[in-house]
Amino acid sequence: MSAQKRPWDGLISADDQKAYRAAGFGRPSGMGKRPALLIIDVQYRTVGTTPMPFWEAIKEFPTSCGDVGWNAVRNIVPLLAEFRRRKWPVMYPHVAPKVATEGGRLAEKVPAIMNIAAKGYKFVKEIAPEPGDVLLPKKHPSAFFATALASHLIDAGADTLIVAGCTTSGCVRGSVVDGFSYNFRVTIPEECVYDRGAVSHAVNLFDMSEKYADVMPVADVIEKLKAIP
Amino acid sequence: MSAQKRPWDGLISADDQKAYRAAGFGRPSGMGKRPALLIIDVQYRTVGTTPMPFWEAIKEFPTSCGDVGWNAVRNIVPLLAEFRRRKWPVMYPHVAPKVATEGGRLAEKVPAIMNIAAKGYKFVKEIAPEPGDVLLPKKHPSAFFATALASHLIDAGADTLIVAGCTTSGCVRGSVVDGFSYNFRVTIPEECVYDRGAVSHAVNLFDMSEKYADVMPVADVIEKLKAIP
Amino acid sequence: MSAQKRPWDGLISADDQKAYRAAGFGRPSGMGKRPALLIIDVQYRTVGTTPMPFWEAIKEFPTSCGDVGWNAVRNIVPLLAEFRRRKWPVMYPHVAPKVATEGGRLAEKVPAIMNIAAKGYKFVKEIAPEPGDVLLPKKHPSAFFATALASHLIDAGADTLIVAGCTTSGCVRGSVVDGFSYNFRVTIPEECVYDRGAVSHAVNLFDMSEKYADVMPVADVIEKLKAIP
Amino acid sequence: MSAQKRPWDGLISADDQKAYRAAGFGRPSGMGKRPALLIIDVQYRTVGTTPMPFWEAIKEFPTSCGDVGWNAVRNIVPLLAEFRRRKWPVMYPHVAPKVATEGGRLAEKVPAIMNIAAKGYKFVKEIAPEPGDVLLPKKHPSAFFATALASHLIDAGADTLIVAGCTTSGCVRGSVVDGFSYNFRVTIPEECVYDRGAVSHAVNLFDMSEKYADVMPVADVIEKLKAIP
Repeated sequence: MSAQKRPWDGLISADDQKAYRAAGFGRPSGMGKRPALLIIDVQYRTVGTTPMPFWEAIKEFPTSCGDVGWNAVRNIVPLLAEFRRRKWPVMYPHVAPKVATEGGRLAEKVPAIMNIAAKGYKFVKEIAPEPGDVLLPKKHPSAFFATALASHLIDAGADTLIVAGCTTSGCVRGSVVDGFSYNFRVTIPEECVYDRGAVSHAVNLFDMSEKYADVMPVADVIEKLKAIP
Repeated sequence: MSAQKRPWDGLISADDQKAYRAAGFGRPSGMGKRPALLIIDVQYRTVGTTPMPFWEAIKEFPTSCGDVGWNAVRNIVPLLAEFRRRKWPVMYPHVAPKVATEGGRLAEKVPAIMNIAAKGYKFVKEIAPEPGDVLLPKKHPSAFFATALASHLIDAGADTLIVAGCTTSGCVRGSVVDGFSYNFRVTIPEECVYDRGAVSHAVNLFDMSEKYADVMPVADVIEKLKAIP
Repeated sequence: MSAQKRPWDGLISADDQKAYRAAGFGRPSGMGKRPALLIIDVQYRTVGTTPMPFWEAIKEFPTSCGDVGWNAVRNIVPLLAEFRRRKWPVMYPHVAPKVATEGGRLAEKVPAIMNIAAKGYKFVKEIAPEPGDVLLPKKHPSAFFATALASHLIDAGADTLIVAGCTTSGCVRGSVVDGFSYNFRVTIPEECVYDRGAVSHAVNLFDMSEKYADVMPVADVIEKLKAIP
Repeated sequence: MSAQKRPWDGLISADDQKAYRAAGFGRPSGMGKRPALLIIDVQYRTVGTTPMPFWEAIKEFPTSCGDVGWNAVRNIVPLLAEFRRRKWPVMYPHVAPKVATEGGRLAEKVPAIMNIAAKGYKFVKEIAPEPGDVLLPKKHPSAFFATALASHLIDAGADTLIVAGCTTSGCVRGSVVDGFSYNFRVTIPEECVYDRGAVSHAVNLFDMSEKYADVMPVADVIEKLKAIP
């Protein structure tokens, strides 16, 4: 692991990384035997209807992350293919259109989120749900909060979550923390998650890597998945 | 707010901050009428029995944050005094000693956490619980997960959480995300939370400020609390 | 309370009632200051499109409770009117049409529930939601499980739940137990809840009255609500 | 199933049972492959320090169920032995001594519960926990509410819950409803659960049998467990 380039290199100082080592963080949580794939919020409202630079993309949807989102989509494609091949469960926590009474704290903190065009809520075609997938509308950062995600994972007998989608510092992180708390093993393929802010993206990957999940290149994740009997 | 120095200045680029502005994040969530104070994990195991630099401190407890923790303790003192004066609820989510069967994912990811000396679990005297405070043993990052915190807050009629303690990138963040999801208004006095890593500390404050909470100097928090009739 | 006829009279023996008295159960939980009304599952699928005896009603929808449901609807009308008059929050936990991947344990235990005609999911007109009410699709017995009900109640500042709808032994009971656990005060107007089985209905009212809620005639509930300043 | 005597015979009328049949309730949920045993609240405070008739028993502890509790203990013995033999997980949700700040709604509804002698909280020796068992202090009816039970079950890879203990109409029922909602398969060995009220006991078994769980004699449960490869 030491020689490999990590997404947070240059951001987290050597001293800070040494501090985490000294505290004993960052050991691997490992891969179980029954993985489930969570594809979180990969809807056109988070990537745009076509690949565009961020500052173009947000003209279409204020919640768009632009190019980095489309890069992630391309990396999710082979990961999803492996899940399809093995007929492992794929679940799509996603944001459903908001209605006025659902505002709460979110409407105050991020009012733009209350007014997104309908097409923004469609799943990105390249990695869209198929019949039999679990669709989970959610209204909070964590895909577990106020949804039946835990129930679906228990029904599927899952012991491991592979988490893809966006944003790294928002719904991905919230879902990873809850998945860890529920005692699922969590792995994040680092090219399959995305965010509007580069620093938040990298530092959240570091935080999750140290405390809650295994963070690694998607190629390594696929290799580990293939090794499951 | 614009001219004020923020903890994440220099870390989050102007471009990234502009991106969040463009997406419509970061509006104030505001202060309600019935605040509750959460003091999370301020036990000797996170600050050390006396103020010491980080690299000294972790020799006593691997989970210690050292000096930054004691700075936070000093800043929590006047905040707590205001809560005592108004007889508002004060709750202490904290880590109880671990037993072998409670390991789960945590024991694998951070094995050092399973072996902390008993004195490390004592509350820091300067801001320790008094009779009538709510003590909440917890075993996961969020103070809400697998605890009765939500029930206690509902019983107290709280509408606002003031969150202090540690670590910014761990239990503070997990608790803030859940508090936000439960529709409490959340405020973080920025000098009252601490972490072992400077970058994670600052970037997590930024993330929470943009999406889940109001982050401001403790003096401003106390002023706003005093304004509650 | 002693002289008043209770729904469980004749079913729960004097000895059993004495046992609960001796154990110290059944004290009043009382009414708070900010009530919210939960109208659970009052959709045509649980009462039928017109009042009919049970054995007629279930020919229309297997999940129908028939006449007892329409009696409850008539009793909910003045209760709801009081909430409308005071502009207090009214929330409608309800069952949304099922899709194949949502089966889980329910599909095995009650397969008929997976195939109800669309009109059955409509709210009963006499007490249907109005703009501004909170609609909560649910898939489990408790209206709190995997829904944002707790978040909505916290946002509304509610401290008391008035629970109406069906079935007494199913979703009403599940919701009452969770509402109690969250530390809301819970009151059940006894003519406003209904069930397909008379004994389950009465015994569940008894259980809830002893352990989780105040159970009383709707006229008494309305009187207590009117007394809130 | 038809000829077998059921605990609710004579209480639930033939008509009511026919109504449930017509509505399509009561199909078996079945046994999975990885069972976990929950022994809920089998502490001296619920059975007394020695077998005694109910009216004697409650003089020792107001929360005691007396003889019926000891009958259940005797029936749990062989069930537990089977779990020990297979090294399957055994979990003990139980009530820990109350402190003043934990009262909430419970202290109002059942004040006697706040003052039980310390020896009452000890586990009944015949079926007490052994090293490696999971102990879960709880403060609400459901063993899942505000506890890490779901996390422990996920860590154990459990797909099926066998639920024993007390009271049938209280913590057993609350836990069964949540276990069902989380999509665990739930089985209740009918002689292994107990309650202070005979009617509530029987009717709650009926309710759970129709909607949430398989209810059967403990001998049948043990036979089904033995059939798991």
